[in-house]
Amino acid sequence: MENFTFSLPTEIFFGKAQIKVLGEEIRKHGGSNVLICYGSDRIKENKLFTVVTKQLKKQKITFHELNGIQPNPRISRVRDGIQLCKEHGIDFLLAIGGGSVIDSAKAIAAGYYYDGDPRDFFIKEAEVAEALPLATVLTLAATGSEMNGNGVISNLETQEKRAVGSPLLLPRFSILDPEYTFSVPPNQTAAGIVDIMSHVFAFYFCSAEDTYLQSSLADAILRTVIHYGPVVLKEPKNYVARANILWAGTLALNGLLSFGQPGDRAVHAIEHAVCAVSDITHGVGLAILTPCWMEYVLSAATKMKFYSLSVNIFGALSGRNDTLTAKSAIIKTREFFSSLGMPTQLSAIGVAENQLETIAQKTVRFGKIGTLKELAFDDVMAILKMAY
Amino acid sequence: MENFTFSLPTEIFFGKAQIKVLGEEIRKHGGSNVLICYGSDRIKENKLFTVVTKQLKKQKITFHELNGIQPNPRISRVRDGIQLCKEHGIDFLLAIGGGSVIDSAKAIAAGYYYDGDPRDFFIKEAEVAEALPLATVLTLAATGSEMNGNGVISNLETQEKRAVGSPLLLPRFSILDPEYTFSVPPNQTAAGIVDIMSHVFAFYFCSAEDTYLQSSLADAILRTVIHYGPVVLKEPKNYVARANILWAGTLALNGLLSFGQPGDRAVHAIEHAVCAVSDITHGVGLAILTPCWMEYVLSAATKMKFYSLSVNIFGALSGRNDTLTAKSAIIKTREFFSSLGMPTQLSAIGVAENQLETIAQKTVRFGKIGTLKELAFDDVMAILKMAY
Repeated sequence: MENFTFSLPTEIFFGKAQIKVLGEEIRKHGGSNVLICYGSDRIKENKLFTVVTKQLKKQKITFHELNGIQPNPRISRVRDGIQLCKEHGIDFLLAIGGGSVIDSAKAIAAGYYYDGDPRDFFIKEAEVAEALPLATVLTLAATGSEMNGNGVISNLETQEKRAVGSPLLLPRFSILDPEYTFSVPPNQTAAGIVDIMSHVFAFYFCSAEDTYLQSSLADAILRTVIHYGPVVLKEPKNYVARANILWAGTLALNGLLSFGQPGDRAVHAIEHAVCAVSDITHGVGLAILTPCWMEYVLSAATKMKFYSLSVNIFGALSGRNDTLTAKSAIIKTREFFSSLGMPTQLSAIGVAENQLETIAQKTVRFGKIGTLKELAFDDVMAILKMAY
Repeated sequence: MENFTFSLPTEIFFGKAQIKVLGEEIRKHGGSNVLICYGSDRIKENKLFTVVTKQLKKQKITFHELNGIQPNPRISRVRDGIQLCKEHGIDFLLAIGGGSVIDSAKAIAAGYYYDGDPRDFFIKEAEVAEALPLATVLTLAATGSEMNGNGVISNLETQEKRAVGSPLLLPRFSILDPEYTFSVPPNQTAAGIVDIMSHVFAFYFCSAEDTYLQSSLADAILRTVIHYGPVVLKEPKNYVARANILWAGTLALNGLLSFGQPGDRAVHAIEHAVCAVSDITHGVGLAILTPCWMEYVLSAATKMKFYSLSVNIFGALSGRNDTLTAKSAIIKTREFFSSLGMPTQLSAIGVAENQLETIAQKTVRFGKIGTLKELAFDDVMAILKMAY
């Protein structure tokens, strides 16, 4: 187990009607004039916006709005948000939504105190030195961003999708009410489930050999998501199923699994490059790419990781033919994603074949990726062709 | 899943040589004159005391000592500690040890700002309103106190062992170096393992039905401890085994498992009453009482919890005779504790038969205990007799 530091200062308010703490919590963290960041008008249609603003008014907290934040959130909208904060003297950011909205709020929080363009954080030309405080009201189980300091933003001009991370970007608190995820449509619910599993896989399939505990915790999250994934698709208002998946999504990427091991975020890296050129849904891209990556990296050296997935998650018997058992993990993973309604090929979701080379170039533009198996340009091309 | 709030602000520094951050971290949290709390002189013999004070001197942090804190720590020593803090103008507490030392430091931290006797916190006559900042250097995998706000203290005069809890008592940071646990003797190592398992059981065997995720995380911790427990007894300097158990001990009682469900701390409550009258080792008491409690509460209504332990932890096949499968969980638990060298009867560790009634009275003096099955005086007596 590698050395690590660990703390989770973000306060989670989990459960029904937890929104009641919103106003007081914002006040506690010094907020009095809030920018509410959100995506589509769904939160106005389903009255969540009204519920939120009622809480703010109770505490005499004024607010402005930044709407229209899209999936694969754009740096352009981040710039708009910073502008709004400056115009209106905003002192607190409230993200209502999933990863795109929360990540945009984080970029705005950091950009507010930065003289240059917020893109600089994502091309590693600037470090976050100060940030506005922010909080989240989560409406989608997927991102983990509600309890970590990371964010991912797309730049359409340069066709880049890049990340920033800083403890200063940790939400002060996050409200996780499973009922707010009842109205998430099936395709987004499914993509969120794949996203959670992919976050877990990044710590499941890595070079560490001595993190028995973290791997077992990863098992626990995978089992929960695989158990309840089909349930929420069939019964979108099943509170218990939504609650378990929502909390699993947070624990999958809040540090619990990552610390003490290097992780392998190769699939995420490839998928971000795909998103940067073709604007597909993150979870959909992951569902297509993950089994292909698995097939490509499966070898005599790595097979025990797949064997573990097969035996510990998909119920294969242990101690039998280990190569076949390892391979069955890939078949089962693909089957599970298909059962959620996920497509299996990049060609089916609007990616053009002549974009593959650009995607591969972007993926490895800073060098090889991956730890379980290091991947260079040719490796990524091979995976993309399998996925096409 | 019940509503809950969750955050883990204590910063964990996990791994080899993490002690290097000690001085800077204390300075960061405003400490300049520290009271070092510890138990036996083992930390002087094994040089840990020298390692610690060297780090303090580097930062020109002065220090005083409170030594001789015993297992089942006494309120009298807490009073001594408060006195020392006042005499020397202490501004930070550093606990080096396991649960007894850390819990004593917490009581001192709270008592420092309280005009009355610190016992008042434990008989619920006073709430913690302010506390000195504290940090820990953990030397034993067991307590969880290094990352929570709780403490348990014994009062020999009144034969009471009671708890206090407050977010103000959360350690600012804790240093977890698995190498510091290499020299823990086998009996204490084993008692620590039982303590960890008992903390997990408290959330495993409770009335909640809908916390699939938390139960699966509990599985993960139990599996890890059962896997590595025998290893650390055979190879006390096995870093990987010690590291996994040390981190499992923290996660077992830092809130990860408890939130969203009521828990059932009946065994801990009975064991605390045993300790209050006979001063046995906490983990030893738990090892004796846990299987007896299991036998007593196993019924048609509760058997699926035991069935789960049998199938998910001890490898029984599922879907066969569920009553027998449930019973086998108790046999396997008892076997595992015995394999660690734990005694199986209270009579073997110095508890007198005529003390059982007093113990049972103390256990239920505020009413029934337990959630999986509520226990009154007669129930506790029955369990104690089984354990005797």
